[in-house]
Amino acid sequence: MREIATGITKDTTLCISLSGRPGNTGTRFHNYLYDVLGLDFVYKSFTTSDITQAIAGVRGLRIRGCAVSMPWKHDVLALVDEVDASAAAIDAVNTIVNTDGHLVAYNTDYQAVAHLLTSRGVPHQGTVAVLGSGGMAKATVAALRDLHYLDVVVVARNEHTGRELASKYGAGWRPELGDLHPATVVNCTPVGMAGGADSEALPVSVNVLEDAWVVFDMVPMPAETPLVVEARRRGLTVITGAEVMSLQALEQFVLYTGVRPDPGLVEAATAFSRA
Amino acid sequence: MREIATGITKDTTLCISLSGRPGNTGTRFHNYLYDVLGLDFVYKSFTTSDITQAIAGVRGLRIRGCAVSMPWKHDVLALVDEVDASAAAIDAVNTIVNTDGHLVAYNTDYQAVAHLLTSRGVPHQGTVAVLGSGGMAKATVAALRDLHYLDVVVVARNEHTGRELASKYGAGWRPELGDLHPATVVNCTPVGMAGGADSEALPVSVNVLEDAWVVFDMVPMPAETPLVVEARRRGLTVITGAEVMSLQALEQFVLYTGVRPDPGLVEAATAFSRA
Repeated sequence: MREIATGITKDTTLCISLSGRPGNTGTRFHNYLYDVLGLDFVYKSFTTSDITQAIAGVRGLRIRGCAVSMPWKHDVLALVDEVDASAAAIDAVNTIVNTDGHLVAYNTDYQAVAHLLTSRGVPHQGTVAVLGSGGMAKATVAALRDLHYLDVVVVARNEHTGRELASKYGAGWRPELGDLHPATVVNCTPVGMAGGADSEALPVSVNVLEDAWVVFDMVPMPAETPLVVEARRRGLTVITGAEVMSLQALEQFVLYTGVRPDPGLVEAATAFSRA
Repeated sequence: MREIATGITKDTTLCISLSGRPGNTGTRFHNYLYDVLGLDFVYKSFTTSDITQAIAGVRGLRIRGCAVSMPWKHDVLALVDEVDASAAAIDAVNTIVNTDGHLVAYNTDYQAVAHLLTSRGVPHQGTVAVLGSGGMAKATVAALRDLHYLDVVVVARNEHTGRELASKYGAGWRPELGDLHPATVVNCTPVGMAGGADSEALPVSVNVLEDAWVVFDMVPMPAETPLVVEARRRGLTVITGAEVMSLQALEQFVLYTGVRPDPGLVEAATAFSRA
């Protein structure tokens, strides 16, 4: 007999995710840690056609934590009681914590990007080129601004979203890299993503990497994108989207449970979640 | 390592209960059957301070099934899309089934009582005395009316609720049994309930049992109440509250999953749930 459902009691705490297309990665990461640490928690992903009802459910059912993905990262701002600086910085939420009915919105993507920029020593010297103008580009440009990086350029073909993002956070904009030789390249486009149209491609030409020191690729899957492989081959400092994903999930875990697992355990949970 | 939480995926179906004071009995009954049958379901009990938000959550999170207990059995009638005859019969809901966002309310207590009256051959001859005027008394009197029992008396000290219940379903009322000698005694009071003030007591004097054929005790815990023990000793036909509880949970299980477990399995799940 399985012992999955029978392990759940009236006292088990539920955490959930809400996303347009639920995956298993977050579910596996959190549940692995609950089981290994013997925490009486369970994590389950959901989708919804009504985000207002779903957040009412978080309140009504006293759900402890709720990860929020596209397309509701902005809409839920109006549905919570308090917005943490991490979510306010980019007007986007990826995490809600429910403490006795008081809902606080966070953005652990922003926190993870800011933490990795600092802990991995991404230099303040030279230009930081941020490729793309979507949600992760916003988190990155906001974190760079808040960490006082002075020379930041958004590189995005879409002039409207590119200029808007750049001007909001005091960065420059250009449609293409052109003759720019950034010290740091941050890829916030889907180029290199497993299953995507450009899964085999690089988001920049190889000669850009000749002058770069750091490559930060936000693509979460695979961990070793073509850009990451090429950057490693050249001996650059490399930060991967897999690291961002793991770190942001870890920060969610800490917010929900109050427990910070040691790095070896986080690594095991990450491996389990991506298997 | 435990394998409780890690068995849950994005595709796992959630069923829940909402009650003022959640217990583990329903949780254990359903989860035992899910595990034994290898169904990708999980059951979790919740309490709430806002039933409207909680039912919004059932919709918003696409929760498949929801058991409803005191104090919301009546209030949820206004929150569903359709009311089954079993819930309409007594203006009370104990089960909500969510099929693609369409919520139907049932009362499996009513169904279980009606089924047991029939399957156990409770005679139409003689008087049926229903002790009490609460929720289970209502389910019982309604089921007796719908099954065309003609001589039904509500016995309840509270004249207001007693008379109201009796007149609604065409039964008689009296404050005490007095000189009545019912063929069937149905106990819908808490007398005999584990942990209650009258856990050792009988709800009727022993001489009432001398002329009775059937004792139906709605007290769910223990299964062998003093009344049940005394009735068995006298060789009467006995139906227990534990049977009602198991049968109503089984009907919920069938409504949620579409699977009807065989009787041996139901017995094992019942034993597990009461352990």
